[in-house]
Amino acid sequence: MSASSRRLELFAPAGLPEINRGDDLAPILTAAFDRANTKFKDGDVVVIAQKIISKSEGRRVDLTSVRPSAEARKLALDTEKDPRLAELILQESTEIVRKRLGLIIARHRNGCVVANAAVDLSNTGGADTAVLLPQDADISARAIAERIRDAVGAEVVVIVNDSMGRAWRKGTTGTAIGCYGISALLDRRGQLDRAGNELQSSEIGLADEIAAAASLLMGQGDEGLPVVLVRGLVWAGGTGKASDLVRPREQDLFV
Amino acid sequence: MSASSRRLELFAPAGLPEINRGDDLAPILTAAFDRANTKFKDGDVVVIAQKIISKSEGRRVDLTSVRPSAEARKLALDTEKDPRLAELILQESTEIVRKRLGLIIARHRNGCVVANAAVDLSNTGGADTAVLLPQDADISARAIAERIRDAVGAEVVVIVNDSMGRAWRKGTTGTAIGCYGISALLDRRGQLDRAGNELQSSEIGLADEIAAAASLLMGQGDEGLPVVLVRGLVWAGGTGKASDLVRPREQDLFV
Repeated sequence: MSASSRRLELFAPAGLPEINRGDDLAPILTAAFDRANTKFKDGDVVVIAQKIISKSEGRRVDLTSVRPSAEARKLALDTEKDPRLAELILQESTEIVRKRLGLIIARHRNGCVVANAAVDLSNTGGADTAVLLPQDADISARAIAERIRDAVGAEVVVIVNDSMGRAWRKGTTGTAIGCYGISALLDRRGQLDRAGNELQSSEIGLADEIAAAASLLMGQGDEGLPVVLVRGLVWAGGTGKASDLVRPREQDLFV
Repeated sequence: MSASSRRLELFAPAGLPEINRGDDLAPILTAAFDRANTKFKDGDVVVIAQKIISKSEGRRVDLTSVRPSAEARKLALDTEKDPRLAELILQESTEIVRKRLGLIIARHRNGCVVANAAVDLSNTGGADTAVLLPQDADISARAIAERIRDAVGAEVVVIVNDSMGRAWRKGTTGTAIGCYGISALLDRRGQLDRAGNELQSSEIGLADEIAAAASLLMGQGDEGLPVVLVRGLVWAGGTGKASDLVRPREQDLFV
């Protein structure tokens, strides 16, 4: 009944360099935190913008090299999009959920329903350059966490953040598309409320809440703060994937 | 290009009492922060769980006093819900979006699409007791912010938080259903990315991201931590309502 006070600290270090294909992110991140006199501790959560992971994994695509299929040209015509972009969207997605002038909502291969299948044209490092999501952001998160553990001995949680639009609501929010070392979906079913009644709504989108919190520091435009340390989370630990947060269409009551 | 580091602190003080109808929340909150040696400053964001606002505003309903209409009895039959709960859901909503055994998704009068029209049966302070959302949580937020300003001289932002399910994704996340003193929907259209290109996705669900961050400390069950101070947000300021975050159905591409 009598809870203790809780505190959470978020810190986004400045000074990360532009990331290029083949860059090893773990030492780049630890160096940025070192310069800020911050050492990783067990249970720290490191939230990383998908864009720098994508860049390190060589997910930049030169649009001039893309040959649109007939299907992509049709989609581009319907939406007044660049046919090369439409081609990438089709390649990245399993389903076009909705389309309208200037906008395509697609189910990405990772299961997320997102504008333009998350094919990104801003802060890509060049005109005519698109950046795709990491091939598998859960695997990316795990690899970075393991590299950090090997380098500095701390067991950190890693969450890969992307900004997504939502059904029913305006504006994007930071959302977890990859994670390692935490229960992305925290299952509290069967636990009791303070009166001893079973909790009604007890599956928490924990990794999404962490990603949203980190976005408050990252911003989305010219800030250049793609990494946020979250320290003090009592939920840290557990195993899970960001894909645990994806609701299969046939179970979805909100759409 | 060269951003400065950013830091954000969240703090949830222990020791808030059970809230009852007519309680004045502002002095109760400031007392809890005083005991934790924390004084409000201009620009602080105070995130408050809707449940304690609802309780202070007398939004508890004794289910034994509810007379279900024929429509409510039909809805209860279809979903195997308590007919009295179904009646409250109908009263609180403008539209039943979906229904299925054990679950009703409704558009609340505030515009939010939410399970059970946010009629809550957990931590309500009694069996056979439901708690409804505040009548207008934007107005509640403003009133609390003004009372805090009058009492301690600090211009704080207030956000009213509720945990909501989402389309396409599992788990609830903290979501803003009321706010005062901030742009709930941050419009950055026309601003440029680091390469000088216009941002693609530049409407940010800022108040929702703050609410989600606060939920990391609040939890949802027996924690009894219904208030979180967020300090260090660079976006604080602006005017807006949580209703700015509601996307009209006809503009919704995700559903």
